[in-house]
Amino acid sequence: MSKLPDAITELASTLSSLPGIGPKMANRLAVYLATSGQNTAQNMKQSLTEVEQKVVVCKTCGNLSDADECDICLDASRDRQLLMVVETPMDLIQIDQTGEYNGRYIVIGRLISPINGVGPGDINIDKFTAFLTAGGITEVILALSPTVEGEATSLYLTNLVKQSSPEVSVSRLARGLPTGVGIEYLDRETLKGALEGRRQFVG
Amino acid sequence: MSKLPDAITELASTLSSLPGIGPKMANRLAVYLATSGQNTAQNMKQSLTEVEQKVVVCKTCGNLSDADECDICLDASRDRQLLMVVETPMDLIQIDQTGEYNGRYIVIGRLISPINGVGPGDINIDKFTAFLTAGGITEVILALSPTVEGEATSLYLTNLVKQSSPEVSVSRLARGLPTGVGIEYLDRETLKGALEGRRQFVG
Repeated sequence: MSKLPDAITELASTLSSLPGIGPKMANRLAVYLATSGQNTAQNMKQSLTEVEQKVVVCKTCGNLSDADECDICLDASRDRQLLMVVETPMDLIQIDQTGEYNGRYIVIGRLISPINGVGPGDINIDKFTAFLTAGGITEVILALSPTVEGEATSLYLTNLVKQSSPEVSVSRLARGLPTGVGIEYLDRETLKGALEGRRQFVG
Repeated sequence: MSKLPDAITELASTLSSLPGIGPKMANRLAVYLATSGQNTAQNMKQSLTEVEQKVVVCKTCGNLSDADECDICLDASRDRQLLMVVETPMDLIQIDQTGEYNGRYIVIGRLISPINGVGPGDINIDKFTAFLTAGGITEVILALSPTVEGEATSLYLTNLVKQSSPEVSVSRLARGLPTGVGIEYLDRETLKGALEGRRQFVG
């Protein structure tokens, strides 16, 4: 039976280590990269090198940045009383692009996950505690995924704030109906959250 | 509003040129590659280099190969009376892995698509006509996608065989119900094909 050349299988295996790319798509992409001429593969290598050389982690908040400190941390117009905790730089971008939040962020990088052996000691909270120690924050907003890991991390961080900075209030993003999804398709937990968090309707 | 560092945006733009990767997934992958440590990005570059250096196109059939001629063309146990026309090396692998076909293949690389300005002169049929000229083939099996482009190309190739090698029969893959998909979800063309191609049922 025919098989792909080894170099392509190797590339496919690297590609399938990326999130959201299964083995079949990885094969398809590897074949595409092998057949689309040198340009696409070259561009890809070039871009990867640029990222390695130019992208750093913001020393203050953990966001990805071109410089030592990221645009958001340097932005004096940002509300310095608000601090939002997100897991990844991607989550940060998604939330920031809503235009609804003008405070600062802290990117913690990973969530507590006992099943994967990630305890409170394994997530990087140095930057988070540095923000609390510096003072001036009145509200911490937890914007972590509504999963077991997100919940565990939110609980841990809430306790941490309560102990070290009891004057700071802690909130988290609302649970509820995502826009555009019919109620019949939603799971019990989502509906439960939406019901618990119901608000008076001003028609 | 926050944005990703330029180098990441650049990488995302390269990634989104790959088939099946939209802008949002491209951003997510680029951020992942930037944050997963050097290893993933390095492996990716290494694999891309290997593919560039080691993978060639089989001079006989157009399949991807480690050597001048691919495994299938070199395999003496393959039935040399059968020739299957496929669009891409990926299609070839998919079909070959069914284990139901033991002839040889020809990979034509692209389909005729007037809407994209791809005429009969633009698809590479030199290898195909070389097979016909060499003789010994009794059946050409067209295994092109059931799209307008696939149809146009199938028609063109059928006429070509009729004119140059009238003794060779031309067949194409059956149209019908794909396994595992309920009839209620299928489109009219698929059902029409399945009805036209119905076969006596030996229960």
